[in-house]
Amino acid sequence: MSAPPRSAGPDHDALIGTLLRLVRSESTSTRASLTERTGLGRTIVTQRVNELIETGLLTEAGRGKSTGGRAPREVRFRREAACVIGVEVGASGLEVALTDLAGCPLGFHEQPWDVTRGPEATLDQVDSIIGRLRAAHQPPAVPLVGIGVGLPGPVEFATGTPVAPPIMPGWDGYPVRDRLASRHEVGVWVDNDVNVMALGELRAGTASGVRDFLYVKVGTGIGAGLVSGGRLHRGTGGCAGDIGHITVAHGTSLPCRCGKRGCLEALAGGAALARDALAHAENGSSPYLAALLGDQRPALTASDVAAGARSGDHTCVDLLRTAGERIGRTLAGLISFFNPSLVVIGGGVALSGDLLLASVRQSVYALSLPLATRSLRVEMSALSSHAGMIGAAFTAIDELLTPRQLTTWTHRLAPDSLPPAAATA
Amino acid sequence: MSAPPRSAGPDHDALIGTLLRLVRSESTSTRASLTERTGLGRTIVTQRVNELIETGLLTEAGRGKSTGGRAPREVRFRREAACVIGVEVGASGLEVALTDLAGCPLGFHEQPWDVTRGPEATLDQVDSIIGRLRAAHQPPAVPLVGIGVGLPGPVEFATGTPVAPPIMPGWDGYPVRDRLASRHEVGVWVDNDVNVMALGELRAGTASGVRDFLYVKVGTGIGAGLVSGGRLHRGTGGCAGDIGHITVAHGTSLPCRCGKRGCLEALAGGAALARDALAHAENGSSPYLAALLGDQRPALTASDVAAGARSGDHTCVDLLRTAGERIGRTLAGLISFFNPSLVVIGGGVALSGDLLLASVRQSVYALSLPLATRSLRVEMSALSSHAGMIGAAFTAIDELLTPRQLTTWTHRLAPDSLPPAAATA
Repeated sequence: MSAPPRSAGPDHDALIGTLLRLVRSESTSTRASLTERTGLGRTIVTQRVNELIETGLLTEAGRGKSTGGRAPREVRFRREAACVIGVEVGASGLEVALTDLAGCPLGFHEQPWDVTRGPEATLDQVDSIIGRLRAAHQPPAVPLVGIGVGLPGPVEFATGTPVAPPIMPGWDGYPVRDRLASRHEVGVWVDNDVNVMALGELRAGTASGVRDFLYVKVGTGIGAGLVSGGRLHRGTGGCAGDIGHITVAHGTSLPCRCGKRGCLEALAGGAALARDALAHAENGSSPYLAALLGDQRPALTASDVAAGARSGDHTCVDLLRTAGERIGRTLAGLISFFNPSLVVIGGGVALSGDLLLASVRQSVYALSLPLATRSLRVEMSALSSHAGMIGAAFTAIDELLTPRQLTTWTHRLAPDSLPPAAATA
Repeated sequence: MSAPPRSAGPDHDALIGTLLRLVRSESTSTRASLTERTGLGRTIVTQRVNELIETGLLTEAGRGKSTGGRAPREVRFRREAACVIGVEVGASGLEVALTDLAGCPLGFHEQPWDVTRGPEATLDQVDSIIGRLRAAHQPPAVPLVGIGVGLPGPVEFATGTPVAPPIMPGWDGYPVRDRLASRHEVGVWVDNDVNVMALGELRAGTASGVRDFLYVKVGTGIGAGLVSGGRLHRGTGGCAGDIGHITVAHGTSLPCRCGKRGCLEALAGGAALARDALAHAENGSSPYLAALLGDQRPALTASDVAAGARSGDHTCVDLLRTAGERIGRTLAGLISFFNPSLVVIGGGVALSGDLLLASVRQSVYALSLPLATRSLRVEMSALSSHAGMIGAAFTAIDELLTPRQLTTWTHRLAPDSLPPAAATA
């Protein structure tokens, strides 16, 4: 039950990885179907399948369809043999999911949280949520084997530390990975929030099975995650997708929180919408926003603009349409450059109504090259606000299931006597 | 000498691919060093090395360094056992190289050529150049095993056909790959010119060993090739990198050959420089250009502007500086998005002087995010105008040396009795 895979050479590992991927993706697998799919000899496939059964990652699962003789035995991935945690730290909220090894949520928790409270307080809070989730949703015998984390700023993926994140005072260089790893004694992987969300959409959302796509988050800030050939493209310094600070209005005086002027985010992000909403409430051009402000609200938000647009306030409609047009104009250039087959739009502002998506689409199709938009879809995120925590869980799962990682944790898997239903209930 | 590899399963193929890559990249390899590098058993490595020797791709190459006992036998890649052709079709010229299996040129030919003469005339000309190069530079026993082609427009890589190329009348949908493959009875791969140039820079130029970079061609038109994680990112429709038609001047009246207005290419490409040069010659604001036009020249070119700038003509300096600034401004956004570690600038206009590169650099560093430029280099192409034909040869070589392709051509390799010097002289 607890023997690690026997060798660690690339030849052996490649087959272990291939078999794991096949069994995870197929509804039913037998040694014969795997032999056929890999094109390899029956002996070597049986050997490696048995190794994976010994480690506890696969198990025998009854009989498949007979093709004449005795029905072959099926094998299946033991998704219930361990669990992982996905953490999404937002600018103003925390989301934590407990999932099985297939990324299926067993339980989750979300709450408001101010990221400016710093890493110590935030990670203490995450520790306590993890404890409660495990106590409530997980059979005691099922081990936690990994944690994935998304942070709202640039992260050096190799070390799991934030790098000069603009909206996270106190987090610059803080060893987020090491802090969580030593507390929970499991593998921890930390990435920026849009990469994590893109991975969530790739593994379990709108982009399932898509090879080249962009995930665009329109929240307080604006950012993108890039997938090239089915893999996250993180870029050289891990900051690929930082589209919020592309200069879109040369010569404008609008300052951005990054210190430059005329950035996309300063014109079309959630914070920009909130700023413009306040101005329109104060000068009376939006009756809806003026009334909200009159109710003793200290400030307005992008959600207020979305609600105003839904109620028919013309200024709110204009604000969202203009923001969508500016985002779409920038995306049009990036689409000509990257030629994705799908753009997934997510984030709080985008999810607050259909108007922004419609406006983004209009600009994208008007301004991208015909060849680049020939088979392009622009869709709302299917995972909605959960893309982050689900994607964070997959950030850990994808790394855990690489052959070189298997030896480090599979000895801890729960024994096979556990019925699958108990863990996935 | 002519036995194809024995099996075609992924396990076997992965090791064949790994061993080929290692032997090609190392100056000396022995079975022992390969065993160590792969982390696999000596028996299986020896088996697969012997298979590769049987196919004729590797050969024994004397004795390596002794570590006590008898010195181990070295193996080396038989780059001289076959040759490939790389073809770069430009808007106004043809370049064809004959190379060995390591992409090292054995001979080449370049000549002016008008791509609007259409595919039949162009490929007839290519056929005749290939015949002359083989006759002049290649021992009769060395077989031609592949052809790579770069075309100045969008290409569907899977089928090797141009797709609605704007400056290539008559080429749309023409079966370039099939036409060359049936004539020469070898594998043929066709891609757009900037992808081919990016691959040339990756395998043998400025970007050697770089994982994430952009190749930007500034010629008559403007285009880019993207490399993500060491692989070409071609995009969903094969048109990634089409940056010449990103709208950079919204609301301008400047028409582009693509039918839109305000495209980067219409403002800063070679054709735009030629157009502006003519205007400045006619209105007298550039004495240098006016004198050229006075010499009965029917039109002016971007090269004239570069020459004028070198001779100190202020208008020419301004034209190049403005073009560089516009290109750099667009690149700044793409750099924030893609986070490469290197941008290689090539193409006729860029190569005609240092002023454009200096101006591009200035805009890029001023407008990209500090994180994205922290370790960014912006360099002139080292392969210069040969990036296309060398890259085209590598387009074929990279495909030929994938394990699934080996069985289709290695039976034709030249026998091992041929001394290496004869082929590489």
